[in-house]
Amino acid sequence: MNLRGYLNARQRRNALEKNLRISLSNIGHYSLDEKAAAAKNCENMIGVAQIPLGVAGPLKVKGEKFEGSFFIPMSTTEGALVASINRGCKAVTESGGAITASYNIGATRGPVFYTGNIRNEQRLYEWVEKNEEKIKKAAESTSAHLTFKKLIFRGLAEYAFIRFAFDTEDAMGMNMATIATEKIVELIEKETGISCISIAGNFDADKKPAWINFIENRGHKVWAEATIRKEVVKEILKTFPEKIYDVWLSKNMLGSAMSGSLGFNAHFANIVSAVFIATGQDPAHVVDASMGVTTARVTKSGDLYFSIYIPALMLGTVGGGTVLATQKEALSIMGIVGGNQGKNSQKLAEIIGGAVLAGELSLLASLAQGSLASAHQKLGRGGK
Amino acid sequence: MNLRGYLNARQRRNALEKNLRISLSNIGHYSLDEKAAAAKNCENMIGVAQIPLGVAGPLKVKGEKFEGSFFIPMSTTEGALVASINRGCKAVTESGGAITASYNIGATRGPVFYTGNIRNEQRLYEWVEKNEEKIKKAAESTSAHLTFKKLIFRGLAEYAFIRFAFDTEDAMGMNMATIATEKIVELIEKETGISCISIAGNFDADKKPAWINFIENRGHKVWAEATIRKEVVKEILKTFPEKIYDVWLSKNMLGSAMSGSLGFNAHFANIVSAVFIATGQDPAHVVDASMGVTTARVTKSGDLYFSIYIPALMLGTVGGGTVLATQKEALSIMGIVGGNQGKNSQKLAEIIGGAVLAGELSLLASLAQGSLASAHQKLGRGGK
Amino acid sequence: MNLRGYLNARQRRNALEKNLRISLSNIGHYSLDEKAAAAKNCENMIGVAQIPLGVAGPLKVKGEKFEGSFFIPMSTTEGALVASINRGCKAVTESGGAITASYNIGATRGPVFYTGNIRNEQRLYEWVEKNEEKIKKAAESTSAHLTFKKLIFRGLAEYAFIRFAFDTEDAMGMNMATIATEKIVELIEKETGISCISIAGNFDADKKPAWINFIENRGHKVWAEATIRKEVVKEILKTFPEKIYDVWLSKNMLGSAMSGSLGFNAHFANIVSAVFIATGQDPAHVVDASMGVTTARVTKSGDLYFSIYIPALMLGTVGGGTVLATQKEALSIMGIVGGNQGKNSQKLAEIIGGAVLAGELSLLASLAQGSLASAHQKLGRGGK
Amino acid sequence: MNLRGYLNARQRRNALEKNLRISLSNIGHYSLDEKAAAAKNCENMIGVAQIPLGVAGPLKVKGEKFEGSFFIPMSTTEGALVASINRGCKAVTESGGAITASYNIGATRGPVFYTGNIRNEQRLYEWVEKNEEKIKKAAESTSAHLTFKKLIFRGLAEYAFIRFAFDTEDAMGMNMATIATEKIVELIEKETGISCISIAGNFDADKKPAWINFIENRGHKVWAEATIRKEVVKEILKTFPEKIYDVWLSKNMLGSAMSGSLGFNAHFANIVSAVFIATGQDPAHVVDASMGVTTARVTKSGDLYFSIYIPALMLGTVGGGTVLATQKEALSIMGIVGGNQGKNSQKLAEIIGGAVLAGELSLLASLAQGSLASAHQKLGRGGK
Repeated sequence: MNLRGYLNARQRRNALEKNLRISLSNIGHYSLDEKAAAAKNCENMIGVAQIPLGVAGPLKVKGEKFEGSFFIPMSTTEGALVASINRGCKAVTESGGAITASYNIGATRGPVFYTGNIRNEQRLYEWVEKNEEKIKKAAESTSAHLTFKKLIFRGLAEYAFIRFAFDTEDAMGMNMATIATEKIVELIEKETGISCISIAGNFDADKKPAWINFIENRGHKVWAEATIRKEVVKEILKTFPEKIYDVWLSKNMLGSAMSGSLGFNAHFANIVSAVFIATGQDPAHVVDASMGVTTARVTKSGDLYFSIYIPALMLGTVGGGTVLATQKEALSIMGIVGGNQGKNSQKLAEIIGGAVLAGELSLLASLAQGSLASAHQKLGRGGK
Repeated sequence: MNLRGYLNARQRRNALEKNLRISLSNIGHYSLDEKAAAAKNCENMIGVAQIPLGVAGPLKVKGEKFEGSFFIPMSTTEGALVASINRGCKAVTESGGAITASYNIGATRGPVFYTGNIRNEQRLYEWVEKNEEKIKKAAESTSAHLTFKKLIFRGLAEYAFIRFAFDTEDAMGMNMATIATEKIVELIEKETGISCISIAGNFDADKKPAWINFIENRGHKVWAEATIRKEVVKEILKTFPEKIYDVWLSKNMLGSAMSGSLGFNAHFANIVSAVFIATGQDPAHVVDASMGVTTARVTKSGDLYFSIYIPALMLGTVGGGTVLATQKEALSIMGIVGGNQGKNSQKLAEIIGGAVLAGELSLLASLAQGSLASAHQKLGRGGK
Repeated sequence: MNLRGYLNARQRRNALEKNLRISLSNIGHYSLDEKAAAAKNCENMIGVAQIPLGVAGPLKVKGEKFEGSFFIPMSTTEGALVASINRGCKAVTESGGAITASYNIGATRGPVFYTGNIRNEQRLYEWVEKNEEKIKKAAESTSAHLTFKKLIFRGLAEYAFIRFAFDTEDAMGMNMATIATEKIVELIEKETGISCISIAGNFDADKKPAWINFIENRGHKVWAEATIRKEVVKEILKTFPEKIYDVWLSKNMLGSAMSGSLGFNAHFANIVSAVFIATGQDPAHVVDASMGVTTARVTKSGDLYFSIYIPALMLGTVGGGTVLATQKEALSIMGIVGGNQGKNSQKLAEIIGGAVLAGELSLLASLAQGSLASAHQKLGRGGK
Repeated sequence: MNLRGYLNARQRRNALEKNLRISLSNIGHYSLDEKAAAAKNCENMIGVAQIPLGVAGPLKVKGEKFEGSFFIPMSTTEGALVASINRGCKAVTESGGAITASYNIGATRGPVFYTGNIRNEQRLYEWVEKNEEKIKKAAESTSAHLTFKKLIFRGLAEYAFIRFAFDTEDAMGMNMATIATEKIVELIEKETGISCISIAGNFDADKKPAWINFIENRGHKVWAEATIRKEVVKEILKTFPEKIYDVWLSKNMLGSAMSGSLGFNAHFANIVSAVFIATGQDPAHVVDASMGVTTARVTKSGDLYFSIYIPALMLGTVGGGTVLATQKEALSIMGIVGGNQGKNSQKLAEIIGGAVLAGELSLLASLAQGSLASAHQKLGRGGK
């Protein structure tokens, strides 16, 4: 059996149902624009996965360029997650909100060239050094919404890796980056005679945990912080600043060191994946976003200073999954549907930063209080 | 505004719609059992995210304990992904199918203890060494479906980290592992007087990229391989074994080395995340699964030997998101709904292994052929 | 010009002097047994490098199986290093000494086998699982001083990597491990028909920074700790426990996280390399020893708890460079010349642990006090 | 007993000899200028370690700015090492020599600042961005031989890490870099009011294995390559290009991937440590230099293309240990004693690059041929 020749989701679904003697009626229950989704988002479409969508918040966020209270849409099947983030939002908001900042490094693409030998590799390096303006021009000719930002060149004797970064406004931008890089590659090949082996040479590095993304950053980098008053820690988080600090130091820092981690955090990936799925981001970019560092400190007055740093957050508010019906509605909950000269994606990045702050805080508090297992037993998947 | 006091998804949705002057009608369109989902999977539920679901395949898989042809359900919003995996499935299947193997290491939980000093830490080590049977018994008292498998103890002067691994049959098992570990921690605290700081000490290491998961493995580890005849490479993949090898070496191996990666692959995360979302897995576990190694080799007869290895694949066919309506249907496409003494989760692991094999093959072929950008331009998100 | 045909160091030296019109008279000034060194330690010998050798201490060390005060021989050309360690020794000793512990994991060798495909790889795995006794016997037939300790098997589709660990008593043991592994490989090849590609497959991992050594350990793993009274911190280290803690947290933990380090320490490598060169260890093993974690904490009474952990310390007191004249004398300063059923190498490991503790303490104190640059300016290489 | 009050090496040595009832006569046998060494290189000096010094070569090296045949001085106690490098030199030289290139990134120092919160951290970032010229001027005021090259700023909410790189001509430059950074820190503290916690914040990252050094480079980065004719591989290296390639792929690439390595090489550390000790470099910098990548490829004509890349090689020909008697003589063997506007250190870097190429080639050939254990058994430390 194969599915070629079937014209739409229903036909494919019916074929599978008949052939495998199963029912796919829930998968067939949806309201999105099937034709658009089948053309742009998912080939061989048979319907949809329905992922529960909840909201955490309101969370007060004080960004550099905006300020507001936000409900955060989260799609998840992991019981206790939304409740936990929600509790963190409350603690952060009652302490004045999450102060955030972000910087847009841009989407990166990193082709690999075969130079054949060291002298050619040096020649390529020199050409690239001299012709950055040309490269920029070639890249920017591919889209009015793309700006070339920078490049990193690393030679490996007979190979050369170049990482290009592009501002793509409110788009996550990997496709735009790929198209712009293809233009750059054409230029390089034509002018130097040196061939590109692969337009994506894992020097990007896309959807793989990689120190280059931690150190050189990718997409947006985001910071968030709050000082949680000790009363709030006690009343809302049911524990003490000192205990949260203890858990943070032994778990996020020492435990991460002992296990060879790229992430010095408790669970960035949980929060990011839930918001990503709700808002139509590429969920494989959770890999990049799972890296990052949380800090905690007991202040002189006995309160808890708490911060998070995400070095590589790839996201957008236009294109990809963001145009789908429920995803667009999820974005509308935060007031950031569509393109807005990069401001919407920045806002989304910082709101996620705030949510991650809330999520780290709440989980570390649960661990400090010793309530993780019971929370899961009560709310979650059971266990037995 | 806050959402406490509202009784169900509709009420919350309406409150948000009214308050934010938006429409959430698509989020409100679903067929899943709201009551169960709200209780078990997602607090503050307002509805669902609809994620397009397509199928790739059929893919012939020859596991150790099963053999068959499978359609692989994938939920994604990334255009061209399903089509690409589909092409890989065809090439693999026409070459005799994916040969797979897997090994269940089990879910891991890694608490951190505060011993206070080196001598106490040694004392704790000795106690643990001597009482592994007691630990096993305590752990297994928490569930008839959980088997204690092993522990790893690492001391850090005043701290001790212990990583416990549990076979949890067809459940992904993190909650079961947490509950069992809580029981073990009680035992240790009672018998040694040494306190646990956090039941999750990032020595698990859950949802963070970490070498300990790569080296010690976590969940299932999975291998898949196929020898793709050169004619198949040419006809279906539109390129040559030598070119796929060249891209593999320069990208997956050298490019990954140059960027400090934990993943020596092209895009494991893409395939895993799409199947995970379709089948109700925890999407944050894509982080663990994004690590792994692909190998490629041109055989003496000019064909392409191709393999993948995933060291840490956390998944299940019971509990969590797998009980939801569309997710259960997606599992039914592969014939692995519910519990079956661990066989269903093993089967899912190896089918994913085969799909990852197909996905790596297809992407490396596209890169070798130079068609990545054009594929995205045609099928994907556009770019402009 | 080439140096074949010359019979001894003098002849080679003279040939170089004449040919290059240089003087090598200092290289020609030595008292070691040239014949033995030329045969066992260094081919094409022309003389020696004279490396200044100083002593730090006395340092009080309280090991598990020994206790004493030790002068620590250090060969270095880095001004201020011995003085700094010396200061640390004083602070540690005045606070009661360094409490130490160690565990001998043993020397490791990690061959790579070519199995050809997954099923063969599984077959090899099963054979190895079943025949660990045979493997042990084969290994131990190569030396009365070698004990097989354990193996770790990791498959990669068509490849298999096996890491063998051996207790080699007071020898560092890489050569013994290599010879024993060769015997094991013969056995495996004969009984399974599967070939070894390389007896050293970077799964050892010898002299490369590698997480497997951090996580699985190698050679000796060593802990040391001391609680430094606040008066001692003030008088000897010229700073405060709180300031040392601040530097430790921001530098050793957060700075290491931000730079993608395998070492969460300040300068283990400095101390280890100086003792290694003085005592005839293999200086390339400083790479393995440079990994590790320092912890610092201000106690309730305002003192400084301080500890270090070295996960992979390769060393010995017999064989290799330890038999050379000055190296043997350096070992005699600590009373650990030659073999003693593993006790001498353990003692050396723990004394180095104590020295590393002293060195970390003293450098962090200098940094806290802001005196690093001035120390170097005064004592060191100048700067201009 | 303590050693304060003793005036010179002899007095200290005698005191130790008497007190510990040992003889240190060989340690007391040396020709170096004790007074200078005691003042500049090693406090509490009691004499020297005599390390056997041999030469490998001649090795033909074709640098960018120089060309020549060099004997390479190596201080080692590891039998078979010099012989092995020597064999590699022969193979490389007979194939036309090592083609090399290098780039001086410079010595780096990476202080950590405490900003207190995100907004202050942004303020610091902006100040630094605007005042790079001022920073450069401050740094360069500290030495006529130091040039400020660049800075990398990374914020972590309440902390900021800045990595400064300086060209220090022929000096390794860590002390010069420290002094220059101290000046920069003074400037920043004065103008921004933000305090430096530690002038060395592990963002350097000095003597710890760290991805930032691999990715951002440190000291000199060096490439070397040669195409070894198949006849040379057969006659001198006793194996075949294909077999060397097989060992390289399975060991250096896949084995390194499987063990979580920062080094995709066989034994850079061995070669670098031997040359470093012979020529007065800081042996703890072997840690930085142990990282790097080797590549191997069988050419269409059946020869072996072979290359190495060292991303972080810290060395110098002035200052530190290079002024000592034997070390200076060792440098004179290569004709690079003292300062020469950076040319001598560049030459040393590229000669080491060539030696590393020879060393990698020879070891991989031994492994391919299966002669590693027997070589050690014959030449080395014995084994029993």
